[in-house]
Amino acid sequence: MVAEASRPLERREVEQLVREVLRERLRLRNTPLPAIERSATTRTSGPPNPLVVNVSARHMHVTPADLEVLFGPGAKLTKLKDLYQEGEFASEQLVTVVGPRQRIIPNVRILGPTRNYSQIELSYTDGIYLGIDLPLRISGNHENTPGCTVLGPKGAVQLSKGVIRAERHVHMSTADMDYYGVKDADYMKLRIAGPCGVTFDRVKVRYHPKVILEVHIDTDEGNACDLETATFMELTK
Amino acid sequence: MVAEASRPLERREVEQLVREVLRERLRLRNTPLPAIERSATTRTSGPPNPLVVNVSARHMHVTPADLEVLFGPGAKLTKLKDLYQEGEFASEQLVTVVGPRQRIIPNVRILGPTRNYSQIELSYTDGIYLGIDLPLRISGNHENTPGCTVLGPKGAVQLSKGVIRAERHVHMSTADMDYYGVKDADYMKLRIAGPCGVTFDRVKVRYHPKVILEVHIDTDEGNACDLETATFMELTK
Repeated sequence: MVAEASRPLERREVEQLVREVLRERLRLRNTPLPAIERSATTRTSGPPNPLVVNVSARHMHVTPADLEVLFGPGAKLTKLKDLYQEGEFASEQLVTVVGPRQRIIPNVRILGPTRNYSQIELSYTDGIYLGIDLPLRISGNHENTPGCTVLGPKGAVQLSKGVIRAERHVHMSTADMDYYGVKDADYMKLRIAGPCGVTFDRVKVRYHPKVILEVHIDTDEGNACDLETATFMELTK
Repeated sequence: MVAEASRPLERREVEQLVREVLRERLRLRNTPLPAIERSATTRTSGPPNPLVVNVSARHMHVTPADLEVLFGPGAKLTKLKDLYQEGEFASEQLVTVVGPRQRIIPNVRILGPTRNYSQIELSYTDGIYLGIDLPLRISGNHENTPGCTVLGPKGAVQLSKGVIRAERHVHMSTADMDYYGVKDADYMKLRIAGPCGVTFDRVKVRYHPKVILEVHIDTDEGNACDLETATFMELTK
């Protein structure tokens, strides 16, 4: 399958390569939604909210200004699907992320609403593929983070920073923190039992008055524990 | 970046696509070795062997017959690099794995020596990309496993089975099992401390008289815990 560089390509080889690329690009239009959701099946009497664990696939947050560069003047995010937290949504807008090795990841979904910063959240698997050494950060902390090029249908944005692996975290309201006996920025443990059982030893508490209990892990973490086949989930101090 | 299917491609677009594919393929010739190795820095006095944890990237094992189909009559595996276990090696031979969604993963390295079965070990991230629902298996257990197409420079092999996610495991000699107080097929826990701290709750013991202590996890697991930044590693019952 590796083409030789030392001889000119024959016409049939060119045609085959083009067909292959087009087939792949058409296929990628059917991009999956960014989250696989699992929740504990029985709601016990105690906690104010059920334990929900979501896998965040690679995604982008975007400023209104960057959105207009990528999708044209006046562009707005349009909703594909609501996410678990009220007001958050997966948009219909997709971008292509370009890394320093000239590799690309197409069809990266923008999660809305627009933010006051642009940010790309990738897994380490993505980072190795693209050639970006991803820093581990809580969303919005862009100190000493790398940038990248982002392509939209109407233009390209050169981000100077904001490409991160999101540190695994649990969104909590005051009621959730009271129930678990933790405070903002504490670390908790999340045990996922099953054939690929894993305990995530550092799950950071992120308080916000308007959220309800929800753990976010990335695709590396979701695949490591095979969240889909989990038989039991438990969040502890 | 998505080409329109409804109009013929212009010459410059064809050229650009071909250049893009060739650039990528040339780049991929520099494929990384299949394992990132971490070992505990201080060898404590007790254990017969130091704790070594290796990340296995996607790879293939191959029968002599399949090797000849892929690489031509009389083909032999040639050594690129020794692996940790004596006699095991990363070969110079690379294949392309083709999945049912017509997506491909190129540059999958064959690990030698040849086996009496052909097998492809992928991460769940790879499986989702290719469209293969990977069963979790110990190497060599191919009951109810899917197959796939494998391409080599001289031919293609249609595997009817043997495409798996390798169940995370620890290779042990009798001395290792005695030290940890475990037996073949037991499950142990591996704690990886660090910024992305994880405890793998199900690490299967695999006894063989000629091996020494070595944990194998896949790239999803290695990236979930960010093995490279680990500050402490511990294997327990």
